[in-house]
Amino acid sequence: MLKIGILNVTGYGGSELVRILHEHPEVQIKSITGRSNAGKKIGEVFPYLDDYPLTIESEVSKKVDLVFSALPHKASAEILGPLVKSGIKCIDLSADFRLPIHLYESVYKVKHPYPELLEKFTYGLPELFKEEIKNADNIANPGCFPTGALIPLSQFYKQNNNENSTVIIDSKTGISGAGRSKNIDFNFSEISDNFSAYSLDGHRHQPEINYHLSRYLKNNEKESYVPQNIIFTPHLSPMIRGIFTTCYIISSKIKNIEIDKKNTTFTKWVKTSPNVKNVRGSNNCLIYSDQPISEKNKTKDDAKAYRMISVIDNLVKGAAGQAVHNMNLMYGFPEKMGLDNLAIYP
Amino acid sequence: MLKIGILNVTGYGGSELVRILHEHPEVQIKSITGRSNAGKKIGEVFPYLDDYPLTIESEVSKKVDLVFSALPHKASAEILGPLVKSGIKCIDLSADFRLPIHLYESVYKVKHPYPELLEKFTYGLPELFKEEIKNADNIANPGCFPTGALIPLSQFYKQNNNENSTVIIDSKTGISGAGRSKNIDFNFSEISDNFSAYSLDGHRHQPEINYHLSRYLKNNEKESYVPQNIIFTPHLSPMIRGIFTTCYIISSKIKNIEIDKKNTTFTKWVKTSPNVKNVRGSNNCLIYSDQPISEKNKTKDDAKAYRMISVIDNLVKGAAGQAVHNMNLMYGFPEKMGLDNLAIYP
Amino acid sequence: MLKIGILNVTGYGGSELVRILHEHPEVQIKSITGRSNAGKKIGEVFPYLDDYPLTIESEVSKKVDLVFSALPHKASAEILGPLVKSGIKCIDLSADFRLPIHLYESVYKVKHPYPELLEKFTYGLPELFKEEIKNADNIANPGCFPTGALIPLSQFYKQNNNENSTVIIDSKTGISGAGRSKNIDFNFSEISDNFSAYSLDGHRHQPEINYHLSRYLKNNEKESYVPQNIIFTPHLSPMIRGIFTTCYIISSKIKNIEIDKKNTTFTKWVKTSPNVKNVRGSNNCLIYSDQPISEKNKTKDDAKAYRMISVIDNLVKGAAGQAVHNMNLMYGFPEKMGLDNLAIYP
Amino acid sequence: MLKIGILNVTGYGGSELVRILHEHPEVQIKSITGRSNAGKKIGEVFPYLDDYPLTIESEVSKKVDLVFSALPHKASAEILGPLVKSGIKCIDLSADFRLPIHLYESVYKVKHPYPELLEKFTYGLPELFKEEIKNADNIANPGCFPTGALIPLSQFYKQNNNENSTVIIDSKTGISGAGRSKNIDFNFSEISDNFSAYSLDGHRHQPEINYHLSRYLKNNEKESYVPQNIIFTPHLSPMIRGIFTTCYIISSKIKNIEIDKKNTTFTKWVKTSPNVKNVRGSNNCLIYSDQPISEKNKTKDDAKAYRMISVIDNLVKGAAGQAVHNMNLMYGFPEKMGLDNLAIYP
Repeated sequence: MLKIGILNVTGYGGSELVRILHEHPEVQIKSITGRSNAGKKIGEVFPYLDDYPLTIESEVSKKVDLVFSALPHKASAEILGPLVKSGIKCIDLSADFRLPIHLYESVYKVKHPYPELLEKFTYGLPELFKEEIKNADNIANPGCFPTGALIPLSQFYKQNNNENSTVIIDSKTGISGAGRSKNIDFNFSEISDNFSAYSLDGHRHQPEINYHLSRYLKNNEKESYVPQNIIFTPHLSPMIRGIFTTCYIISSKIKNIEIDKKNTTFTKWVKTSPNVKNVRGSNNCLIYSDQPISEKNKTKDDAKAYRMISVIDNLVKGAAGQAVHNMNLMYGFPEKMGLDNLAIYP
Repeated sequence: MLKIGILNVTGYGGSELVRILHEHPEVQIKSITGRSNAGKKIGEVFPYLDDYPLTIESEVSKKVDLVFSALPHKASAEILGPLVKSGIKCIDLSADFRLPIHLYESVYKVKHPYPELLEKFTYGLPELFKEEIKNADNIANPGCFPTGALIPLSQFYKQNNNENSTVIIDSKTGISGAGRSKNIDFNFSEISDNFSAYSLDGHRHQPEINYHLSRYLKNNEKESYVPQNIIFTPHLSPMIRGIFTTCYIISSKIKNIEIDKKNTTFTKWVKTSPNVKNVRGSNNCLIYSDQPISEKNKTKDDAKAYRMISVIDNLVKGAAGQAVHNMNLMYGFPEKMGLDNLAIYP
Repeated sequence: MLKIGILNVTGYGGSELVRILHEHPEVQIKSITGRSNAGKKIGEVFPYLDDYPLTIESEVSKKVDLVFSALPHKASAEILGPLVKSGIKCIDLSADFRLPIHLYESVYKVKHPYPELLEKFTYGLPELFKEEIKNADNIANPGCFPTGALIPLSQFYKQNNNENSTVIIDSKTGISGAGRSKNIDFNFSEISDNFSAYSLDGHRHQPEINYHLSRYLKNNEKESYVPQNIIFTPHLSPMIRGIFTTCYIISSKIKNIEIDKKNTTFTKWVKTSPNVKNVRGSNNCLIYSDQPISEKNKTKDDAKAYRMISVIDNLVKGAAGQAVHNMNLMYGFPEKMGLDNLAIYP
Repeated sequence: MLKIGILNVTGYGGSELVRILHEHPEVQIKSITGRSNAGKKIGEVFPYLDDYPLTIESEVSKKVDLVFSALPHKASAEILGPLVKSGIKCIDLSADFRLPIHLYESVYKVKHPYPELLEKFTYGLPELFKEEIKNADNIANPGCFPTGALIPLSQFYKQNNNENSTVIIDSKTGISGAGRSKNIDFNFSEISDNFSAYSLDGHRHQPEINYHLSRYLKNNEKESYVPQNIIFTPHLSPMIRGIFTTCYIISSKIKNIEIDKKNTTFTKWVKTSPNVKNVRGSNNCLIYSDQPISEKNKTKDDAKAYRMISVIDNLVKGAAGQAVHNMNLMYGFPEKMGLDNLAIYP
């Protein structure tokens, strides 16, 4: 049995790790931390974990084999640094090990406490980088928006020569993406029956999308296809979980293209436009694309745009579930172990 | 492997059975029916079941060992009657086999198609009747409101002599309790940001509560404790799943009582008032009670009322999960098999 | 034109006052305060008030005729005290002037800064105390739960001799009742698809209900009817606005009673059970009662319980709308002035 | 007093007309129809209109001066045809008189019953065609999505020469846009905690956007600016009211442009991205635009895209409120008469 530690179990990412790992037959959670709740039994914070035999500690035990960190960025690296150096394997759900040092520091406006460890982390998006993950010691788990955008975009660009294209990523996220936070903007009375856009002057996940899409295309010798212009608009929708991503690829060169619709373990092409309830509580990503749009809309003879849609559960495929998938790949467990439950509907 | 059939898989009760049985290692779903969808693959109706290898049939296969019926009342008995007679075991989620014939026909205003089979069904509320269930061939699975009310009330009356008491059951249910129906009253625009009571001239679940509470108390030789006056008010709350039941027991005889708070496999006493999210997606029932109320409120020296709260997921403990629990008891499987997942939070 | 000041315009009670007074032809808002936003234009806090020509001040102008306070208790009395003494009329939406001094201090656990001013305030529930309000200089505006409970209960007890009765008040409130607060418990992800009870060890509105119901019955020489046992359970329902109150009156003496169903300006008896959307955004209170319950349920020959339901919008009839109604009564304006809009549906 | 008739008062558009016209001092509703409810008092259908002195008729009275039709397309033209011919003025909220005959019949797949009357209707979007509306006898009230899209796009193209541009309109609507319908897809359990796209093979509002944007630009001698490629994606968000429209204009020619941000009576430019709650229940349209995007995102020196956001209440500015605004323009009433209420918040 693999001995697991979880940092910041009291956030939504942390509690979701507990829910998922509870179903995994090859692991045992041995040590959990939570920032202001040290000393409490986990059931005192989350009543539905009432009979879970774990007490929140101020520091994670050094006797674990693998640590998941659900801490915010910077705080995560500060705790993970010494653990990595002591040889404990780590899967970091924060942004701390996802980007090269200069990009990270300019986007997150903080000094990285352990820049020398960046090279020890592998970006954990299995649909793009599965072989690297299998050989990884530590994982930088992707952000929720990048997961929803990179899966469809990588499938598109891998197949289509689209120099000089523009990409619009119009994403709609549930509120749990904001974390278990006290911000008045996430109060039920403010969010319910509302809809808004945010971070219009630049969301931190945009450079993550740009960087890893380019890296993926270069790995696949499709360097010339890297889109030169990616516009990302995150929106808040009054739902608890889920990210719905509508992508538009605009290029003068799109013409009678066919993308290769290959399913992977958790990513499936569907024939009708999916909705977020189709994946709620599951680790699946569903993708859909109609034919190049302008053909269908008959506004012009030559196609000018391509539309792709993806849906994920931001806390599962967008966070804790993908982290467990990465663990399964690292340790050679079956990919679906602990992750084969159906979506919860309705 | 036990071979399972599901009648009316396209309702919420039926699709929840698929979700739960998917986790059960000792069964295999072999045959499913759905009223207007015969011939379709199940994934055409529920996209999240896209790769589920089942086709909806017009009639359930006779080769199954056990049939779950998620049909509405009357329609359920009409299909189950011949199956029971042919020796196939049945668990009926409808009301058709829960009540004695006269009570059933006066409450549901229909003629029962197979009254002679009523004696072959056992009322499947394990917290009250576990031994009977273990020996049962067929199960009448309880209604959602009766499940939420009978569990706390039976615990109270088993311990306390309260002749002449009045019971108020003020229940609040999520909208999935109304089924996958086209009624305009359940349209999102009508339900969201709203709250209402319904069936104030008598809900069909009230006689079910009265009848089985009396039967339970008589079984336990507490006949004199049967409350003479039970008032039940169902309310609709704008949530998908969950039943929150607030019970009040009013009696001139309540005085310094202590109820014996015994946990069972899925029913747990909790120290602070629970909420429905604590059990969402799980088969648990949480119960809570403060001390007799009037002592606390200091309005009078002698206690006059007792307040109890329970929460369940109406589609799990209130329907499909309890049905699977009953199956586990009938077949000698571990009680939690297929039902040990944690609540989905948030 | 009456010159108006509003204290704490940045809470939900304060912003609702702006919305309602905007429709009132005889008043003009001249001065507004908001705790941490002094110096900002109101449109910077509430974008929908973008062209409202008011700047938030740190202190209310002394040149106004009437001040509405939407401050929390204690803070409200501290600011209102000097204003009352200087002769400015005040309508206080907080609890500070609703209860006698000993009751107030024991319930709210604070020392009242101006106990000598309590006698200068009139409890502003027009359905019970309209004549007093017409002659009042200052108003203690009722709490939201007491408004929803006192209107039906006063109608019942005014007509029925029910010595020794027990009253259950099972209330369900929308989340805006908790104010514009940062508490994580009111985060959308926690509240949505959830339902809970709270303050089970005694909510501050219960003594307010007890005190003013007794006072009303004594005024009407019905002293013997005061119920000896009132049990109040507040619940949180995932909706923005609205209070749904289910009252149960239990007594061995209820028998063939008829309550006098008189409509008042904003309180209306309806023939089917109302829902909160029927009053959203309006100052109406709808009440409904079935016949005494046990007759209908046929469990016994002599009736033992009476059920009444009321619905209000907690921010209008339960706060700002009732405050404006009180102003209309104090100043001799038509009662519906500024308050005659229809409910917003759906 | 203008005498008003309303066709199909029992839909959401019809009931919203009642709510708004209730505030209008120069009109009186004299006659209402509702398809299956003839003979009922309106309060029997909508309890919040309990004391509204109107009975639903099977046919509208011929004694009215102006008829609003909230009927579905085709049914609307069938009833309005004879009324128009008899000289009664009409404002049609359906699509029947918005498009030229060939476009209408190809998009709506029905034969128009009165094609000869198309020329008697004026497209009622005051931000684009106010002078025509002032002189109109009959109004084709715009669709909700076209209202949200045409207001920002017209402002953009009026000022900027953008030949060969592509426009993405990514719209998110509340559920009331689907009407008071029985479709199971709009059941609360399906919509809540969900998000989806629909009509991906072409929504009927897209040709309406294309047609009137072209017409507006030609009127303003900006014919060359007409975008050649408009992609429209409607999404369903779990909220009752509101349309949030995110527009992207992509062109190789966008460079240091400044659009002329003129406010009109109900359309206002705001400095931070608005949300739909900012306009709930009001007739306002708020628009926002950041600088050309690629400048901000620093991906390239020359700007390539422009992002604009608008919010409206689909039932007010997107339907009934705009209809009343059109009436005010036709009859020379002040533009804001009956429409000057503030948004309802929260």
